[in-house]
Amino acid sequence: MEELKDFEEIKEFLFQAIEDYKKGENFDIHPYDLAEQLLRLRELNHEEYESLCKKIPSELFAEILCEMPTYVQEEIPEVISSKKVANITSKMDSDDASELIYNISQKDEEAAQTILSKLDEEDKEVIEKLNSYEDNEAGSYMQSELFSVSLYEKIDVALRRLKKLKEEEYLDNVFHAYLTEKDGTFIGSIGLEELIVFDRDLTFDDLPKEKIKTYSSSHLLDISEVVDMFTNYNLSAIAIVDDNNKLVGRITHDDIHDVIQEQDTKQLYSLAGVNDDAEQEESMYLIGKNRAFWLGINLVTAILASVVIGLFDSTIQSLVALAVLMPIVASMGGNAGTQTLTVTVRQMALGDISYTDAKKTIKKEVIISLFNGFLFAFVIGVIAFLWFKMPLLGVVIAISMVINLFSAGFFGAVIPILLEKFEIDPAIGSTVILTTVTDVVGFFSFLGLATIILL
Amino acid sequence: MEELKDFEEIKEFLFQAIEDYKKGENFDIHPYDLAEQLLRLRELNHEEYESLCKKIPSELFAEILCEMPTYVQEEIPEVISSKKVANITSKMDSDDASELIYNISQKDEEAAQTILSKLDEEDKEVIEKLNSYEDNEAGSYMQSELFSVSLYEKIDVALRRLKKLKEEEYLDNVFHAYLTEKDGTFIGSIGLEELIVFDRDLTFDDLPKEKIKTYSSSHLLDISEVVDMFTNYNLSAIAIVDDNNKLVGRITHDDIHDVIQEQDTKQLYSLAGVNDDAEQEESMYLIGKNRAFWLGINLVTAILASVVIGLFDSTIQSLVALAVLMPIVASMGGNAGTQTLTVTVRQMALGDISYTDAKKTIKKEVIISLFNGFLFAFVIGVIAFLWFKMPLLGVVIAISMVINLFSAGFFGAVIPILLEKFEIDPAIGSTVILTTVTDVVGFFSFLGLATIILL
Repeated sequence: MEELKDFEEIKEFLFQAIEDYKKGENFDIHPYDLAEQLLRLRELNHEEYESLCKKIPSELFAEILCEMPTYVQEEIPEVISSKKVANITSKMDSDDASELIYNISQKDEEAAQTILSKLDEEDKEVIEKLNSYEDNEAGSYMQSELFSVSLYEKIDVALRRLKKLKEEEYLDNVFHAYLTEKDGTFIGSIGLEELIVFDRDLTFDDLPKEKIKTYSSSHLLDISEVVDMFTNYNLSAIAIVDDNNKLVGRITHDDIHDVIQEQDTKQLYSLAGVNDDAEQEESMYLIGKNRAFWLGINLVTAILASVVIGLFDSTIQSLVALAVLMPIVASMGGNAGTQTLTVTVRQMALGDISYTDAKKTIKKEVIISLFNGFLFAFVIGVIAFLWFKMPLLGVVIAISMVINLFSAGFFGAVIPILLEKFEIDPAIGSTVILTTVTDVVGFFSFLGLATIILL
Repeated sequence: MEELKDFEEIKEFLFQAIEDYKKGENFDIHPYDLAEQLLRLRELNHEEYESLCKKIPSELFAEILCEMPTYVQEEIPEVISSKKVANITSKMDSDDASELIYNISQKDEEAAQTILSKLDEEDKEVIEKLNSYEDNEAGSYMQSELFSVSLYEKIDVALRRLKKLKEEEYLDNVFHAYLTEKDGTFIGSIGLEELIVFDRDLTFDDLPKEKIKTYSSSHLLDISEVVDMFTNYNLSAIAIVDDNNKLVGRITHDDIHDVIQEQDTKQLYSLAGVNDDAEQEESMYLIGKNRAFWLGINLVTAILASVVIGLFDSTIQSLVALAVLMPIVASMGGNAGTQTLTVTVRQMALGDISYTDAKKTIKKEVIISLFNGFLFAFVIGVIAFLWFKMPLLGVVIAISMVINLFSAGFFGAVIPILLEKFEIDPAIGSTVILTTVTDVVGFFSFLGLATIILL
């Protein structure tokens, strides 16, 4: 979509879209694009945004609201009546509906309850069920809307039912028919692309068995394991079953897509000492407060490094060149360690290395670090010698460079592997632990060696 | 899949799988799982690996090889005959086939040409066409296999053709029928889930127009824009058209899935000064050499920071406490800057902020940084005072903390935004530029203020 320039253009665009939607003709704007513009309107003029929201038909609003960030979803009961929010919720797929209600409840539990009370008993039950799952459980990502068929049903009968479900706009993104026993026990799934070529007078039981895939996930499985199944097996959707193997929902590839991006954002942010949830807040105070947490921890470790330097104050006093050079060793160690740490964390997340490969990974990282340790020891040794005309100063900084890059490689690999072993997210906090190690080892080895060799 | 323990178990599992596959009954092991075990076998015993490779039927090998990392693909002509490689290639989807040939050609151009010469003229042409695209172009990710239908064709006739294509195992992951004019001009796509409910005696022209979606991408479009379309519009597949709007291929969600993970890996690695392609090499020498490049740049910037410290050597000489405290200011600036930089780079990549929001982003980051700047200025000011019993030293470190955290927030946001504006990947090199700034500003402001105020 072309970028709309100003407030008037955006308002005009949105008004026109709502008109076109109501007429029902040739409406081909994707809700994502509407959501984007509505979001910009909200930023430019909150009043106009509120008044426009009241004009959007519930059915269209349901599609737009799914595309909106958390902070817009949670404030929606303040913008439109709870009756309309309930109406919008009822038009959403169950996974989107439960997310909306969850977001609202995080800000205002009472508003969420009011909306829930205005829903059909059935819708309400589904939403409450989905929201009862933990954040990391597959169940919290599933939708209950799916195309389920029974084994002895004729394909034709099932497809007529699908047609009806499609006409009622109950179902979208249908990739499979899910086969179940009469009691709902999951048997397997058959792709529409397989189904479409068979004679409609056959029953599902007549289909060749190899066309029926048995992939499924427990509703309690960790979502990252579901992501792995999608990635490894190139799935479009997966059936979700309960403890008794009854079919309770499905997760589709577009949901997994979002999970991957969220997980990757979390990983990247965690390594940089940033909390991904907090960054999605609108309030700068909340964002700043959260960043301050990790900065505070960094301050403590920086002071620790300073204490190490303080141990050698008389050494520095007698040779100020040490103060000039000492950040180099620490900085190189920090950088080499971050390289190792980042690669290790990422490869563990992608499943390329696991705890069983720990020894191999550590060995590899230590060898690489030592290789670069010797390389840069030589370079910085020569530079220090030429700069301060002291051969032994070159020797001291060279040896401490080797020591610090060795520990950077070793701890850069060991820290995330150990965190993972104790089931702690290896991305969170590992950078701070690592730089503490490389700072302390860097300053201690450089100043310590200087005290022994130079004084 | 359960983890297989040792060499014998893995060999046994693979042999059994090959036998089962040949029998053709109940073969339900996913090629990904076979690839994983084969990879482990390769690591444990290269000879056994080679002899087993010779036994895998080409059709099965085609599926396994797609799941293998680059370094395994590129060495495959050394493991099995080029005739067999050609046979395997011909059984692959065109995107996988062209990737295999590309990987082989990177290591041994001659081997790639030999294999190409043994292929059908048609297969060869398709592969050469796909490999003629640049890495970042949509065309290099597409496959030419798709289900195309013409407007005035009866649905029934088209579906019979689909059935044949499926039986020949020519087509997989069919989500849409692609409608074209007689000359191949792309009209739109219709989801199988829509198509399956219509009377087979209708032609495609009889279908309601709103069921036909017109999403498509030029073969030359940057793949990251294609990824955005998938993410924003929740697509399962997209039609790829050439400059004359002729349908030339399609990209499916599982390919996009891989692109997202690759892009995220690249982003994460770039911020840590690691090259993602190099890290996928098997050779530690190549990995180490590549990491040395960024460490070398870091060395230069660390020396620059040292030069700044050197400007104040007499100041340090007269007050060693400055040497003890100076890494704190630089470290806090580096951390705060990394927080800002990471969030800015990620949000630009996700499309949450763009160049037009530059001002807003910079303002937000500066405010957050200043907020934390004042907070930690107070904390470290008090600590420095208590530690060294010098009130003015506390004032100096507090002021320089504010200055450095301000510049961390400002440059952490500005650097990636400027790089993006000049169409340079904002993740690559930005960390080094930023830490140079925070180191130089940190040391200069702290030691400079100390010279003015304390001496």
